[in-house]
Amino acid sequence: MNRFEQQMKFILEIDKVKNVFRQTYLADGNRKENDAEHSWHMAIMAFLLKEYAQEEVDIMRVVLMVLIHDLVEIDAGDTYAYDLDGLQTKREREVKAAERIFGLLPKDQEEQFRELWDEFEAYESAEAKYAHMLDNFQPLMLNDALDGKSWKEHKVKKSQIYSRNAKTMEGSEKIWEYMKDLVQKNIDRGNIQDE
Amino acid sequence: MNRFEQQMKFILEIDKVKNVFRQTYLADGNRKENDAEHSWHMAIMAFLLKEYAQEEVDIMRVVLMVLIHDLVEIDAGDTYAYDLDGLQTKREREVKAAERIFGLLPKDQEEQFRELWDEFEAYESAEAKYAHMLDNFQPLMLNDALDGKSWKEHKVKKSQIYSRNAKTMEGSEKIWEYMKDLVQKNIDRGNIQDE
Repeated sequence: MNRFEQQMKFILEIDKVKNVFRQTYLADGNRKENDAEHSWHMAIMAFLLKEYAQEEVDIMRVVLMVLIHDLVEIDAGDTYAYDLDGLQTKREREVKAAERIFGLLPKDQEEQFRELWDEFEAYESAEAKYAHMLDNFQPLMLNDALDGKSWKEHKVKKSQIYSRNAKTMEGSEKIWEYMKDLVQKNIDRGNIQDE
Repeated sequence: MNRFEQQMKFILEIDKVKNVFRQTYLADGNRKENDAEHSWHMAIMAFLLKEYAQEEVDIMRVVLMVLIHDLVEIDAGDTYAYDLDGLQTKREREVKAAERIFGLLPKDQEEQFRELWDEFEAYESAEAKYAHMLDNFQPLMLNDALDGKSWKEHKVKKSQIYSRNAKTMEGSEKIWEYMKDLVQKNIDRGNIQDE
């Protein structure tokens, strides 16, 4: 395959992420959201909210990172944030997926995307921290808009949310403060369990 | 409303574009694609295919442009590329939508997004031409992957595709050549009408 054919193959392959559904509902509550929609939403949020990033970020890098961060789920599936069994094998399944999926691209673009995904996973750079903040904030915002529908279905506890968001303030203190207020509001309403 | 509240309001509002469905099917043929998925796909394509852009492009500008280019359809709905009645009122409906939707943002961000959308609509800058090429190429690629399912349903003619793509080569000659081959292949298979 030549370079262009490799690019076409990858571009068609990633269409499949539109069929990877998450546990979060759209704000109208009618159906669950898929990874492509979630990534699109995060990319626009990344741009609009960059003034609140804790450290200065290369915004192009963040946008690309969030656009591709869930492609591995084409093979590995979506692992719900609070699914402890699934989380144990997640890393292994996702690395294998990254090798296959990014491996469809020409070498230079494979390396670029793999590097972005590895950086996201490592959760250490300013860009990765900001991207993870968005990855946690986007579904929290939708869940709040629906009076906690998905939290209630999964009987989610405050401690689970806090543990998942242990480093969210390193992405944005301002938005983490806002998120904490939303969590407290949903505890008060009985949507999140206070333990 | 303060700046942050305005940003939150916009971010929640645009969730609605995930419910604006297009005439294109996903590559597996099971359902139609929505605007959020289409925009996400285009954004990744924009980055991967930039070496084929006819003129040098500011890739960050293109990515943002494609991410937001269909937000007006939240109010104006999707107008099918070959719906002549719909196309007559499209511009008016979309300008009104742009005013309301981008108007939810703080002034500086409203201006930024409105400028990007106006530039896309004007179809004159290198970035807008490249973005329009992607906007035409992405559904053509999916349609080809499905043996022309949507073209057959709408009895699409070669002349309609050529007329819609009159400026596609100004976005990328290389990709327009590839698109023409796909069109010819689908004419040969009887998926597109040869007139």
